[in-house]
Amino acid sequence: MKTINVGLLGFGTVGSGMAKILLQSPEVIESRLGATLALKWIADLDLDTDRGVAVDKGILTTDAEEVINDPEVDIVVELIGGYETAKRFILQAIEKGKHIVTANKALLAAHGDEIFSAASKKGVEVGFEASVGGGIPLIRSIKEGLVANRISGLFGILNGTANYILTKMTDEGSPFSEVLKEAQALGYAEADPTFDVEGIDAAHKLTILLSLAYGVPIDFEAVYTEGISRITPIDIKFIKEFGYRIKLLAISKDDGEAIEARVHATLIPEDTMLANVNEAYNALYIKGDAVGSVMLYGPGAGMMPTGSAVVGDLVDVARNIMNNAVGRVPSLGHQPAGVKSRRIKSIEELKTGYYFRFSAEDRPGVLSKIAGILGKHKISIKSVHQQGRDSVGAVPLVMITHEAKEAAVQAALSETDQLDMVKDKTVLIRIEDWR
Amino acid sequence: MKTINVGLLGFGTVGSGMAKILLQSPEVIESRLGATLALKWIADLDLDTDRGVAVDKGILTTDAEEVINDPEVDIVVELIGGYETAKRFILQAIEKGKHIVTANKALLAAHGDEIFSAASKKGVEVGFEASVGGGIPLIRSIKEGLVANRISGLFGILNGTANYILTKMTDEGSPFSEVLKEAQALGYAEADPTFDVEGIDAAHKLTILLSLAYGVPIDFEAVYTEGISRITPIDIKFIKEFGYRIKLLAISKDDGEAIEARVHATLIPEDTMLANVNEAYNALYIKGDAVGSVMLYGPGAGMMPTGSAVVGDLVDVARNIMNNAVGRVPSLGHQPAGVKSRRIKSIEELKTGYYFRFSAEDRPGVLSKIAGILGKHKISIKSVHQQGRDSVGAVPLVMITHEAKEAAVQAALSETDQLDMVKDKTVLIRIEDWR
Repeated sequence: MKTINVGLLGFGTVGSGMAKILLQSPEVIESRLGATLALKWIADLDLDTDRGVAVDKGILTTDAEEVINDPEVDIVVELIGGYETAKRFILQAIEKGKHIVTANKALLAAHGDEIFSAASKKGVEVGFEASVGGGIPLIRSIKEGLVANRISGLFGILNGTANYILTKMTDEGSPFSEVLKEAQALGYAEADPTFDVEGIDAAHKLTILLSLAYGVPIDFEAVYTEGISRITPIDIKFIKEFGYRIKLLAISKDDGEAIEARVHATLIPEDTMLANVNEAYNALYIKGDAVGSVMLYGPGAGMMPTGSAVVGDLVDVARNIMNNAVGRVPSLGHQPAGVKSRRIKSIEELKTGYYFRFSAEDRPGVLSKIAGILGKHKISIKSVHQQGRDSVGAVPLVMITHEAKEAAVQAALSETDQLDMVKDKTVLIRIEDWR
Repeated sequence: MKTINVGLLGFGTVGSGMAKILLQSPEVIESRLGATLALKWIADLDLDTDRGVAVDKGILTTDAEEVINDPEVDIVVELIGGYETAKRFILQAIEKGKHIVTANKALLAAHGDEIFSAASKKGVEVGFEASVGGGIPLIRSIKEGLVANRISGLFGILNGTANYILTKMTDEGSPFSEVLKEAQALGYAEADPTFDVEGIDAAHKLTILLSLAYGVPIDFEAVYTEGISRITPIDIKFIKEFGYRIKLLAISKDDGEAIEARVHATLIPEDTMLANVNEAYNALYIKGDAVGSVMLYGPGAGMMPTGSAVVGDLVDVARNIMNNAVGRVPSLGHQPAGVKSRRIKSIEELKTGYYFRFSAEDRPGVLSKIAGILGKHKISIKSVHQQGRDSVGAVPLVMITHEAKEAAVQAALSETDQLDMVKDKTVLIRIEDWR
């Protein structure tokens, strides 16, 4: 049986998962691939930590270049994470004619075009299924299964940490900071949670999906990004009363003229499939002109699920190596001639429904004053809740609007927030209903 | 740009969907494939019906063999359905060296091994993503994305008609026969609904998925099959009270020793993702040792969704043609040496929870008598509801059991059903909780 040699850079969580699968289930892979995936090298600066995987000590090295320069290595797996080092090793490996498998969404969102272009010139593959949605085969589904579709919308819960926090806030009514601490204690959130809770990680992933779906160059800067740290238990309570759930949603739409691309806390109808995606699970809801809509759901992170996606890519690349079919599917799913820049709309162009929570003085005339300003900006109110009169000081005045323009909303709120009777910056959460 | 010629056999609903996609979105496909998929022939005995697709009259023929014998045709798409004619054309086309794309699950469940073996000998591809789950890319996900996994369970809502009927029965409390008539009027159910409502169509699909998941030969007879026609509004009412939803579930498990394969009405916990798959939608929940669990959800039938899957397969086959990589992935996902017969358990070996509805006389001692018989067979009761005393004649006595053996359950019910106080055959519905 033919052997395909794999060199791993980065023996962390996902690297250990990949190693575990290759060592524990070789017959599963051989039965399907008709070849052996041999783990020839593992490079990591820390070789002392016990990873819980019984690997032959002889394959361990602290020198990544030893792996990259080994002429017998067919595929280099980059699971180091981060930008500079990972990028340098990937480009070196490509230069040496190695195929690449990576889970590094941050790197691909920042330097994907450079990496894919280098790989294409050198005639090697780059697999990155593990970079978005962990174990869910969603990149392959967009590039292959749904290839007949003009994709018109992507709606993704792409960050497990943020989804875990919002789920707990919704179920338990606890404040963000408290749930974040719990999540950190449980290992669901990192010590510095910025990438997860401020939407940056989800935006990295959306950047990649955008490019696959619409054939546009990778452009992280074009994705509008907001996080979930300003959501409060009061908001959660009202959101439920209005019949919604709150999710950190990665949203992209193509109306034929231009593309929307944004990540922000979003209210979605409680009776949709996406509203039921809870805890650390991820899901991507895809709208296409032929298929209508499909949703892919599963674990968006973790050692074994992400390891599953990495090994799926290894098999995919190995099949191309064995059939001399490298480049069979372009990295981003489109032929070079099919990749075209498209206009990405600014957030000011958005038209959608809104949830507002004003912190207003508890006295007559407040609603009339605020509603007047909204009306002037052509924002029409669909539903209002006003907190009971037993509170002291500022009370929440919450409302749901009909579809309005973001630019008008921003202009209106900058007026209302200057009113004497409004005591704090108004909370705005966008609403999405893709049905 | 290279051209791949496609010949279509069967210009029905799905055929029209496929034609529509190829004619309306050629640039979408070309941008991704780097070649043109040209619809060279459409064969159908009925060329008079307007299919709502503007095709050049010159490509229409009533003679399928004209398509099969055209040396310029690269891929033959079989969308005739049924067994004999479809099989004959497919085998003829393979013999002529054509690649095959089909949506015909009944044919594959019955004669798949013969067709795949003929294709393998001749060195041509067989694409059948459209045969299970309509537009949902689930076959590709099992064969490729989840290839690293030892699959331990499949739980599928694979028949849209049955799911539509059960959804309406649950939402509206209407009887089966009435909802079936509505479904027929709306075009969701066929004039002869047997395949859909008796679980046969779902069993065809499960037969195919089994083979992909576990590397076993195709064996439709091994799948235990029951339908939904005996479910009544009373059952639906109690099922909801017990915290479940009812689905026609296709279930398969591999415990390492043997395989379970069954299709029947099933109670599943109401707070699971599958319980929220309603109307004519399909979903497949897959458990794998590495990935944990993923679920794929979408439209399981229909002109455009199924057309999307057919065109996805066309692109896949075309990519292999263009790269001389035919046979890159084996038809059923496993190398010939990896395909092994496994023992499939009989339904009597099943161990699960049960819902029973006894039609019993309304007098003291009934529950004690029935519970005594169940106890003798080591079936322990988890929960009981007894209908109020205001009814006349036989009243429903419903219960949920802890895990019990099917053989014991069958033995116990054949005893209870002979009691004078039991007035009708007891309704049994199996419970499944895969979490």
